[in-house]
Order: sequence, then structure tokens, then C-alpha cells
Amino acid sequence: MEKIRRNERLSAMLKILSDSPNRIFTLSHFCDLFDAAKSTLSEDIDILRDVTQSFGLGELETVTGAAGGVRYRGTVSKADALDYVKGLCANLSGTERVLPGGFLYYSDVLSSPEITSYMGRILATAYFETEPDFVLTMETKGIPVALTTAHALGVPLVIARHNSRAYEGSAVNINYVSGSSGTIQTMSLARRAVREGTRALIVDDFLKGGGTAKGMVDLMHEFSVTVVGMAFVMATAAPEKKRVAGEKSLMTLEIRRSGDEASALVRPASWLEA
Amino acid sequence: MEKIRRNERLSAMLKILSDSPNRIFTLSHFCDLFDAAKSTLSEDIDILRDVTQSFGLGELETVTGAAGGVRYRGTVSKADALDYVKGLCANLSGTERVLPGGFLYYSDVLSSPEITSYMGRILATAYFETEPDFVLTMETKGIPVALTTAHALGVPLVIARHNSRAYEGSAVNINYVSGSSGTIQTMSLARRAVREGTRALIVDDFLKGGGTAKGMVDLMHEFSVTVVGMAFVMATAAPEKKRVAGEKSLMTLEIRRSGDEASALVRPASWLEA
Repeated sequence: MEKIRRNERLSAMLKILSDSPNRIFTLSHFCDLFDAAKSTLSEDIDILRDVTQSFGLGELETVTGAAGGVRYRGTVSKADALDYVKGLCANLSGTERVLPGGFLYYSDVLSSPEITSYMGRILATAYFETEPDFVLTMETKGIPVALTTAHALGVPLVIARHNSRAYEGSAVNINYVSGSSGTIQTMSLARRAVREGTRALIVDDFLKGGGTAKGMVDLMHEFSVTVVGMAFVMATAAPEKKRVAGEKSLMTLEIRRSGDEASALVRPASWLEA
Repeated sequence: MEKIRRNERLSAMLKILSDSPNRIFTLSHFCDLFDAAKSTLSEDIDILRDVTQSFGLGELETVTGAAGGVRYRGTVSKADALDYVKGLCANLSGTERVLPGGFLYYSDVLSSPEITSYMGRILATAYFETEPDFVLTMETKGIPVALTTAHALGVPLVIARHNSRAYEGSAVNINYVSGSSGTIQTMSLARRAVREGTRALIVDDFLKGGGTAKGMVDLMHEFSVTVVGMAFVMATAAPEKKRVAGEKSLMTLEIRRSGDEASALVRPASWLEA
């Protein structure tokens, strides 16, 4: 291959790094790929660090030590995160999305590749430092945002199910009390899905009473896994006291009734405004 | 902002384009962002087109006409797709992943952000020309690959459920016969999830008899939606005749028994080898 020019190398390098977020690439990897010297690539990385920063495209980090190299993280600044979530809140607030029974319709938001990608980046930014080994979610509606968060963190996604299925093999089942309905439910996870002694970040779409979240925490205890954090797209304002604590949600939901009409008031969570 | 140099502009531009796959950006958008002339940006695009092509990082396309501009597509070449799928097949074949009942355990593959991203790019490559308006999947295990395919196509994801839920609002329910068990099941989709007259690409994890796939096709008819194609991660070799036709699967699964031991033979689908 003929010698690659700097501007070609830079764009290819950023693309490769950002396609595998949070994964450390050694400089040697790029030396081989681009047939360039380490000193040259170090300069490249300095340039890319500035570029990503000035356009709000995440950040490049140099990691020192034996397993060192460079990695891309799709971090989102506090200001950008708050702006983005405010936009979502405006879209979700009002009367139009409120369903009979006081539920909020936002399945379209939860399965939008564009929106969940960005939400995943916001949540990953909040949890990079906790170094989870995988993201855990409970089927169904949280799967997209859990996947994008796992992608941004560079870790696998593990999905707990309502019932154990034949095609999952031997499984650990636990019972938990659904916070909203008070009924006893079952949560199941294949034995081989998780390794003992690892670290989980719980990500789900909705937090009301916290029964399901508490179930996921209990399930992780069965696997001797440490839960490093819990993140949700939406938390209800009531009940204020959940069965879990220390979680980070992106938005808070309150349904207000006046006469026959119900209206949703969706606000950014307070940690985003801090 | 001070004038941006070409190498900075190129990397930022490729990152922005590839973060929103298949979306057309006008040249004016980048003119404003980078404070550069159209002629300069046209040259940039030519360079980026070469870069993405020579490193197998997808492709840049110039779209002419009133709504014209430039778009990134994460296309995967036939050769790369086949190589990748062959690697997956090697990982999934053998005795280790076969569960009692002759099921194959591959939930880890189906929820891996890295693997599903690439599978999504392969499937999108096969369906860009059919111009779907959205991707439809049926909960649960196909959601990750359906999301990444939708992302690569730049369209929303719509998820059909087993039962209608209060928080989905009014829904269309259909009954279908599960191909594998022969039982009657229900499939449900919120009325507001899909607009009449649009085009759907069906993406799911597993095709056996084709009952669920046929159900999704019937469901789309209820919404007056055209099904432009069907894609699956895995199809069983038997039965050879499915209730749907014209689908594209990535892999074919055959379980072979010899004495007490069952072994999985997973092969790339024939359209990938063509």
C-alpha cells in the first residue's frame, strides 16, 4: 500500500477508535495498520484529541502502562447532556402521550436508534469510572438503551427474562415483588450468561416502585456479582422512596390530573442539573 | 473559532457522518460548521470516500438533486461479510453450545454490542436499496440486532409484543400459529407505532417454521404497510420449507445427533457465498 497521508490516517483512526468505544488500541496496532512511526501517531492522537473535544464528539484518552494505548470514549458534557434531556422532556410532556390509566407512551423514544445512542453515551459517561464488566437489563423495553450503554462502555449486554426458556439452558430464577402491581414475579438468567466475581451496571427503561430493580440486584447476588450502579431512562416522581437507592435516571415523570384531562410533566433528573 | 485545518475537518466530518448512518447532510451544513467553501468540502468528501473504501470502513455517497448532499453508509463487502459470518459459525458450531432439547445457546452473541453492530451493518447493506421506513421485530431476542440494523439504515425500530400492554395505548392484535410449537399466539402492536403506507423491513433472531415471521407480515398488512424484506440471524435447516419466502438469514443451523451427543453445525447462508 502506498504511504498514507496524515489527513487520511486521522479520519480512519478516529473512525476505528470510535467504532469500538472504550477499547484500548495499542500504538503498535496503528503503526502496523498505517505503516507509520509511533512518534507520528502520538502527534496524530494529540490532534484527534483536540478535534473530538472542540466538536463535542467525545474524547480520546491515552492510557499508560503495560496494557497501554489509546481509547475513544463517547463522553457527553454535562451541559450537552442536560440540553439533550431537556429536548426529550419537551417532546414527552403534555397531554398527547398520556394513555388511559395514567401511563406515558414513549416506546418510540425507547426504540429510536438515534435517541438511544445518545442516551447510552450520557449514561456511559456517568459510569465509566465504576468499570462495569457488563450491563444487565430486564426484558423488554430497556433493551435498546441497555445495548447502546453497553456499546459505549465497550462491555457485553446481559438480558434477564421473565421466565427461563429451554433455549437458555440451566438458569437461576428468583422471585420478586413488582413495585407497581404488588404481584410476585419471576426473573430468570442463564447460568452461563454471567461469571462470578464480575461487576454489573443495571440499565432499564422505567423505575417506579423499584421492585424489578431490586430483583435484578438480588439476582446479581446469586451470581456473586457486584452491582456498581443503576441507571434508568425514566423514574416516576411518586413514590419518592424506591426499593433501591443511588440510581441515576435521565428524567422524572409526574402525571397531573385536572378534571378529565391528564397531563405529563417530564423533567430532567436533578443530578444532570448539578 | 479559528480556521480549522483540513486534517481536523476530515476526521470530524467522517465522525459526524458515520454517527448518523444513511442520513443525508447538505454541503451547506458542513460549510457552516467548518466555515469552509463548498469546493473545499467536495474535495474533502473525495478524500474521505477513498479512506473509508481502502480501510473497509463503509462508504460515502454523494446524493444529487434538491435534497442532495452526502451520506455515510456502513456497507460491508461480500467478502468481509462472509469472513465475519464464518467466524461466528466457528464459534457457534460444535457440542458445547447445544442445550437439552436440541436448542443452541447463542444469547451472548445476540446481545453483544460489537457483534450485533457488525451484523446490523451486513443486513443493512443487503437492504439499503429497498428503502425501508422502519425495522420491525418481535420481542425479545431479536431486539439488539434489529436496533443495530435500524441504526445502520437510519430508520426507527418498532417492536411488536406478545400481549398488548396498558402503557402502549390502543393496539392491533393478531393471532398466529407458532411454527415450532403449533400453538396459537398473539402478537400486538400499538396503533400509533406505525404509519399507514410506509415500508417495513422485518429483522429477527431466529427462523424455524416461519410462524412468527408470517405473523409479522400479517400484522403489517393490518397497518397497510409494505414488507420490503425479512432478515434473520439464524435459520434452521429443517424444515426446509418455511411459511415465509425470500428471507435472508446470516447462518443456517443443523443439529446432528450421534448416540447421546448432539452437535451444532452452523454454516453461512448461501446468499453470502454467492
